[in-house]
This record gives sequence, structure tokens and C-alpha cells, in this order.
Amino acid sequence: MTMNKVAVFRKEHFNAAHRLNNPLLSDAENARVFGKCNNPNYHGHNYELIVQVTGLPDAVTGYVIDMKVLSDLIKEDVLDKFDHKNLNLDTTEFATVNPTAENIAYWIAKNISNCYKVRVQESEGNTAEYEV
Amino acid sequence: MTMNKVAVFRKEHFNAAHRLNNPLLSDAENARVFGKCNNPNYHGHNYELIVQVTGLPDAVTGYVIDMKVLSDLIKEDVLDKFDHKNLNLDTTEFATVNPTAENIAYWIAKNISNCYKVRVQESEGNTAEYEV
Amino acid sequence: MTMNKVAVFRKEHFNAAHRLNNPLLSDAENARVFGKCNNPNYHGHNYELIVQVTGLPDAVTGYVIDMKVLSDLIKEDVLDKFDHKNLNLDTTEFATVNPTAENIAYWIAKNISNCYKVRVQESEGNTAEYEV
Amino acid sequence: MTMNKVAVFRKEHFNAAHRLNNPLLSDAENARVFGKCNNPNYHGHNYELIVQVTGLPDAVTGYVIDMKVLSDLIKEDVLDKFDHKNLNLDTTEFATVNPTAENIAYWIAKNISNCYKVRVQESEGNTAEYEV
Amino acid sequence: MTMNKVAVFRKEHFNAAHRLNNPLLSDAENARVFGKCNNPNYHGHNYELIVQVTGLPDAVTGYVIDMKVLSDLIKEDVLDKFDHKNLNLDTTEFATVNPTAENIAYWIAKNISNCYKVRVQESEGNTAEYEV
Amino acid sequence: MTMNKVAVFRKEHFNAAHRLNNPLLSDAENARVFGKCNNPNYHGHNYELIVQVTGLPDAVTGYVIDMKVLSDLIKEDVLDKFDHKNLNLDTTEFATVNPTAENIAYWIAKNISNCYKVRVQESEGNTAEYEV
Repeated sequence: MTMNKVAVFRKEHFNAAHRLNNPLLSDAENARVFGKCNNPNYHGHNYELIVQVTGLPDAVTGYVIDMKVLSDLIKEDVLDKFDHKNLNLDTTEFATVNPTAENIAYWIAKNISNCYKVRVQESEGNTAEYEV
Repeated sequence: MTMNKVAVFRKEHFNAAHRLNNPLLSDAENARVFGKCNNPNYHGHNYELIVQVTGLPDAVTGYVIDMKVLSDLIKEDVLDKFDHKNLNLDTTEFATVNPTAENIAYWIAKNISNCYKVRVQESEGNTAEYEV
Repeated sequence: MTMNKVAVFRKEHFNAAHRLNNPLLSDAENARVFGKCNNPNYHGHNYELIVQVTGLPDAVTGYVIDMKVLSDLIKEDVLDKFDHKNLNLDTTEFATVNPTAENIAYWIAKNISNCYKVRVQESEGNTAEYEV
Repeated sequence: MTMNKVAVFRKEHFNAAHRLNNPLLSDAENARVFGKCNNPNYHGHNYELIVQVTGLPDAVTGYVIDMKVLSDLIKEDVLDKFDHKNLNLDTTEFATVNPTAENIAYWIAKNISNCYKVRVQESEGNTAEYEV
Repeated sequence: MTMNKVAVFRKEHFNAAHRLNNPLLSDAENARVFGKCNNPNYHGHNYELIVQVTGLPDAVTGYVIDMKVLSDLIKEDVLDKFDHKNLNLDTTEFATVNPTAENIAYWIAKNISNCYKVRVQESEGNTAEYEV
Repeated sequence: MTMNKVAVFRKEHFNAAHRLNNPLLSDAENARVFGKCNNPNYHGHNYELIVQVTGLPDAVTGYVIDMKVLSDLIKEDVLDKFDHKNLNLDTTEFATVNPTAENIAYWIAKNISNCYKVRVQESEGNTAEYEV
């Protein structure tokens, strides 16, 4: 039997403050468009992050990728930047990009090597997913 | 970098009674085919509903769709019809269609505008998903 | 070191239809008091049931109670009666008693031998607990 | 059979930014004591809130308390104050009190009428509980 | 309206011991490559298994597949072999194949008839998925 | 207002193999008493561990205990001993004590300083709790 590609998923978490706002809009427009998420003093989330890597398992290890290696990659590339931070004020990534779940998923997917897909759960009800 | 489409997911819930039954079958056949789910007095579930919408984030908002808007759409198109209802007796949708998780997922996917995929979890172990 | 009592917990599930209604109230009063839960055609839930038994672990087994035995007890005393049933129509227990989560927890706690406490989760947000 | 008190639990959520800091300590001491939670630009959480009310079920309704009423109470007394807010900047409650999970649980328990116990889950790993 | 294929998912669990090891590597290499998972005395997991079947709902039943039938298939083909077993010592499947989550997902997907995709969650953070 | 004691809870995980067996019983008796859990080649679990500490929040920090400190304590006293281990073969604690969830909860509760109560979830359905 020949094996197709296998997908593996690593789940991690980070906690951050953020504010949704577009400087090209007026304050009133921002308040209308983003509602409670536009609070100028920020609010926050426990972000759940699932990173998917896809490939053939290595002949020697049986791993698509060592999950310890993947976890360390996520730590270096994402958690060290975003965990316990204010996404708007403490990161260069979201200094000028609106930190919606969509944009966070996009940025993470683009910045973890070998990442195939990223799922970012911002709250119990809201999730975004980006496939590279 | 150019962005691919992003998928967003909104989770909602409704509680409903239902009975699985096919009027073209005899009572004995219905009992055999549907087992406990054929109870003539109905049983019920907490349905978990995940609606997926896919698109490019809006240039102004960074949203594929405002989750508040999506939540309101689901409320109007699904929850107001099905929540705390008897799917067989209280809805036109399942008056003649058997309310299996498959058929519920299909109906919802077809009736929420912009919906790309719907996942309906009927119980901890059983889920159905329909992609439009 | 002497050991205090240990609590063990067994989680099970059942799916049922029910209606909240008090025959001593008028229809209008029932509708006002119980809202959507008063639907005459019933609605339903996935009930999650956690049964707690408390005691000293047996010297031979190290068990407070064999979880297989506890699971079988719950199956016989509760699930066989309530699973995939209409609590109001199919059970003697709730033919005249309103099947609120409170009353369900009470009935279960009183009818499982050795039960110390019962937790009944009716929906993601609503739970009742009865200690014998 | 006489019934003991029954406990009911209502789960709600709010999302907020906060910073742990004690103005009586130096910046260096605050950084040492509170670590990442001392970030001057704030971080945030999805707070899960479980409010417990205990009593005898009402003879007419079978409810300890109508969960809709309890949910509305929590909304008015807690969520309208804290949801999508910066706990340090946007609330009077935590303007001078450090918004640890312990202090949040205490405040909520003291300010919801009839509340018996409150559980505040700040993150997957960290929870605090206060019994009035 | 014509219906596309519907996906249904059945979740099951098994508990097993295993050890990651490649007999072609030296002990030192195995220890380096597999770390804690190379413990010669084994460690273990609660494996969560989600089996996906895809098809058009049957015209008579409205089912893609009867979930009771799918559950029985998984029990016979997977759980009876792996549950409460040592994957390395008690199974022929993993006597010579390294029981990584990737290889477990692959084996299951190949050995359940009609299976379209299998997801194996080995721990809260680590999951593998194989599509036939 | 005076504050009562506050309870805080820290959740951690470990993965281990174990076998339930009492050397004072015959093989046949062990097989009968412990069923599948008596497998001589071991099986395994993802253990979820919740450690409760109770006290008055510190006047300076607002913490009952710094959760980072509690997490480190659990790591040193429990996870470093049990994670990715065979409880029967690799630990002194369960070399002669049967590693039931009851006995694991008891041992942990007795060996973490300041611990008030420990909850050990062995599988989705089975949990044990010990209060010191």
C-alpha cells in the first residue's frame, strides 16, 4: 500500500489584548463598524492556535514533523511575539494591520516554515482559518 | 504577498426534539431501521452548529464577514425556526423530510446566504457536514 | 498516613425530549413562566450526567467502586429509562413531576444506590446538582 | 422523600484586557512579581464565568431560579461592566484593585444577588473560585 | 435542488500503551530522536478517533451511513484490537511499524471499510489525519 | 467587606502507561477484578490533573498562590516523576501500590505542598478526587 500525505496538527495558546480599528475611518465609523471590539482601551482573548503541517511521514521516524520541533517553531515564531502582548502596541505585525482573527491567521500561516494551514480560535464562537 | 481566501467559522446552538421515521416504511421497518431514534414520542438533542463562510477579507474591515452579522443571520434563518422546537411537528422544513443530521446540515447550508459549509453536531459522537 | 474518603465521578449521556409545564397553571401562565421550554410539542437535550460516589478505596482493588459497575448501574437505573425518550410521556418519573434539570438531578441522585451527588448538564450553559 | 437544596450553575463569558500591577511596588518589583502579566500595554483573556445559586426548587416551577433570569442578572451586573473592556481602565471595580482571577471572582460573587459561589476561568489552566 | 455528498463523523476512544522506537537505530539515536516517547517501559494515551464517511444520504433513511453500524465497525476493526492494549506488544499492526499518530491514522483509515478520512488525537496538543 | 478563602485551580497533564493488578490475588482473580485494565503488557492514559489550593489572597499580589509557582511545583513533584512513564515499573510510588485513579489522586494530594484537593481525570468518563 502506498501512503498519501498525512496532516498533523499542533495546538498552542496565547493570551493577548487587541483593538479593531481602521485609521482611515472616522471615530464614529470605527465605532459603528467594529462595535465593542473598537474599545480604545483594548479588550483581549485567549487565542487557540492550531498549526497544520502536511507531508509524508519520514521513513526513519514515522513522523511528518517532530511535534516537539513544531511546538518550538510556534513558540519562537508566534508565541514569543504575541503571548501576553498588546497586538496593536507591542507588535510590528499589527501596528498597521487590523488584528482581526483573519489577519492573525494569515500572518501566522505565512511566518511558520512548512505551515500548510492555520486555525485561530479567538473565542468560543469565532474562528478563522488560512491555508497557505 | 497576496492573500488566499480565508475561512471563518461561527458556532451557535439550538435545542430541539425530533423523531426519525419514513412514512413509506411500515412501523416494524421504521423501528428496525431507526432503532431508538424512531420513538413515536420523540427524543431530543442540543445541536451544535458551525457555519463556515469563505472569502477575501474586506480591505476596510479585515473581516471576511462581520461575525455579529453572521450570528444574526444564523439566528434569523435557523435558530428562530428550530430552537426549542419539535423538528417534525413545528417546522415546515422537516414535516416531510426526515430530520437526520445529514438533512439538517443540508437544509441549513442551502438556506444561509453566503454559507460555504455547515457542520451539525447532534451528539458528542455524531456529526454531519455539508459543503454547498 | 491515613486516607480520607475519595470521590469518584462517572460521566454518562442520554438524549431526551421534554416540556416544562405545570398543569395547575393556565396555558398563558405556563407560557409566561417557562417561555420556549413550554412548547407543547416538546424540545430536547443531550443530557450529560456525572454521578459521584464517595468512600474509602477497597483494600484489595484500590477502587472506591469499580467504574464498570457504576457505569452499569447508571445504565440500568437511568439510561434505560430516559435515553431517547420523551421524559413527560415515556417515563413514570416525570409524568406528574416537571422535568427541570433540578428535578432530574434529584430523581437520579435518589435512585442510584450509593450515589453521593449528581450533576446534570442540560445545555452548555445550564447545570443542576443534587447532593443526597 | 424530602429534598435538600439543589445547586444550579449558569455559564457565561466575557472578553477583557487587563494588567496585573501593584502601584505600591516599584516597576522592577512589579515585573518580577507579575512577570508577563505586568505588561504595561495590557494583555487579555476570554473569561469563563460560572455562577452557582443554591436553594430549594420552587413548588410551582421546579426551578431554583429561572436560568433566563440568572443569565439576565449576570449580563446586567457583570457582562455589561466587563465584556470587551479594559478591566484596569474601563471599570471602577479594578481601578485600584488588582484584577487577578481571585479578585474578579470575589467581586462577582459579592455583586450578584443570591450568588452562592463563582468560578472564574481565566485560561485553560487557571481558575479561581469564591464562595460567599 | 440536488444534494452534494455529505460527510459524517463518528467519534470513538481507546486507551493504549506504546513506545516510539526504530530498531534500525542505536539506543542512543532512538533516545535522541524520540525523547520521552522512547521510554523502554512504555507510556500511554487516551486516543480520540474520528472516522469520516462521505456519500449521498440514502433515499430511504436519510443516512450516509447508520452511525450505529459505523460505531460497530470501528469497534470490531479498531477498538477490539487496540483498546487497553500495548500497541507494540499486543498488536500485529505495530509489531514492526512505529506506532506514531501518523501511522495509527494511516492503518485505521486503510482498515475500516468505506472510511474516507481518519483523525487521531493522541493528546490535547497532537493530532494526525489521514485521507484515503 | 471581609473576604473568605478563595480556591484556585491549576490544570496540568501527563501521559503514562499503567496496569491494575494486586499480587495477592491469583492471575485469574486479577483478570476478573480488573478486566481489560489488568493487561500484563500495560495500557495507558492522558491524565488530566487539577490541583486546588485554598487561602486568602496575598495583600500585595492579590494571588492565593502564583500560578507559575504552582505549575512549577506540580512539574517537579508530579510530572517529572510520572509523565511519559510506566507507573508500575518506572516509579517507586506505584511499585507496590495499585495505580488506580483513586490512589494516584491520593498520592499527588499528599505530595504537593499546600495542596487542598486533587482531581485526576483518567479518561473522558472516569475521575477521582482527593481532599487532604
